[in-house]
Amino acid sequence: MKLSDRQEKIIDLVRVGQPVTSVALADKLGVTRAALRADLAILTMIGTLDARPKVGYVYSDKPKRNLLLDYISDIKVSEIMSKPAVISESTMVYDAIVYLFLNDVGTVFVENNGNLVGAASRKDFLKISIGGTDIHKVPVGIIMTRMPNIICGRADDSAYEIASKIIEHEIDSIPIVETLKVDGDKEQYKIIGKVSKTNITKLFVKMGKSK
Amino acid sequence: MKLSDRQEKIIDLVRVGQPVTSVALADKLGVTRAALRADLAILTMIGTLDARPKVGYVYSDKPKRNLLLDYISDIKVSEIMSKPAVISESTMVYDAIVYLFLNDVGTVFVENNGNLVGAASRKDFLKISIGGTDIHKVPVGIIMTRMPNIICGRADDSAYEIASKIIEHEIDSIPIVETLKVDGDKEQYKIIGKVSKTNITKLFVKMGKSK
Repeated sequence: MKLSDRQEKIIDLVRVGQPVTSVALADKLGVTRAALRADLAILTMIGTLDARPKVGYVYSDKPKRNLLLDYISDIKVSEIMSKPAVISESTMVYDAIVYLFLNDVGTVFVENNGNLVGAASRKDFLKISIGGTDIHKVPVGIIMTRMPNIICGRADDSAYEIASKIIEHEIDSIPIVETLKVDGDKEQYKIIGKVSKTNITKLFVKMGKSK
Repeated sequence: MKLSDRQEKIIDLVRVGQPVTSVALADKLGVTRAALRADLAILTMIGTLDARPKVGYVYSDKPKRNLLLDYISDIKVSEIMSKPAVISESTMVYDAIVYLFLNDVGTVFVENNGNLVGAASRKDFLKISIGGTDIHKVPVGIIMTRMPNIICGRADDSAYEIASKIIEHEIDSIPIVETLKVDGDKEQYKIIGKVSKTNITKLFVKMGKSK
């Protein structure tokens, strides 16, 4: 962001003399307090300055961060998730890999009667494929990562929360689920979408796109 | 970002009556023009309002975008790239896959005498592994994507440019190169890093992290 010369001067004055009151700033810059109001509002909003009541302005080294966090936290998973590729537990590994290629995804999710039970990634498939196993005879249920060892997300999570989970747990793709109650109190997870690093990267590009 | 009640009111007034002058806004809100100066400065800076000289304020539906683009464009590839996994062209596919797992990466880059000549991804390796080929006897040079069909980046590209390339060309990982002149005018590409969707997702999380 381009700050004006006066805004840069204000930052310099605060940095060396903090805390500095708006009266002192106006005096040093040879302008009225009213003339400074807009500049000070902008500098505090973007987080470069902190306004301390009855003390003055202090320098704060976290420019633009708050605005970004607010913006990122406003975006919900439901806005960025895409359609998941889903197969059944009895699908043979070879067929699951073909399905992976046909859908051009990095992870397939595994369902059993509408209940999410597992996930298998390119990495899992590559590992089994080079191991000498006959992948035409092994069902995906044998090699997949099984619930509850799968990190799930919700449609109303923020994009930021999901991205953090992806990085923290070093996973490629997170299934987005709804919880269903069956047989009284047993819980099932219905998969309604997925968010991968691709979705986050797309969002990043969209954020930066100027109209 | 949380706007104040008055800022929200200003946006509403401009939206229905645009263009609106600051005199008219001050009049409708029952305050002085000076009192509005900071609000108008903020609303134009974040891009919600556009100030047209001698006309007034108009509503502009691109909030916060400019700030974000500026922020994103300021971040250079050199700040976010990571170490590439590099092998030679004669490495057997099986050994290349083992190397991929050992380095926990999604793509290996292939060099010949310090010159980037190719790249092979998990997807490429999975395709060859299920095809009945003896991967112990085929060198990676046979299955890799070969230069000049590889999208490269530079250390001083912006994170935004690289993320755009990743999405546009549907690739997982971009090698970051320096051009070397050899034998007079022949050009070679020395790989110095890589940027993947993981790096972009990490950056996204870092951007949102509040101190």
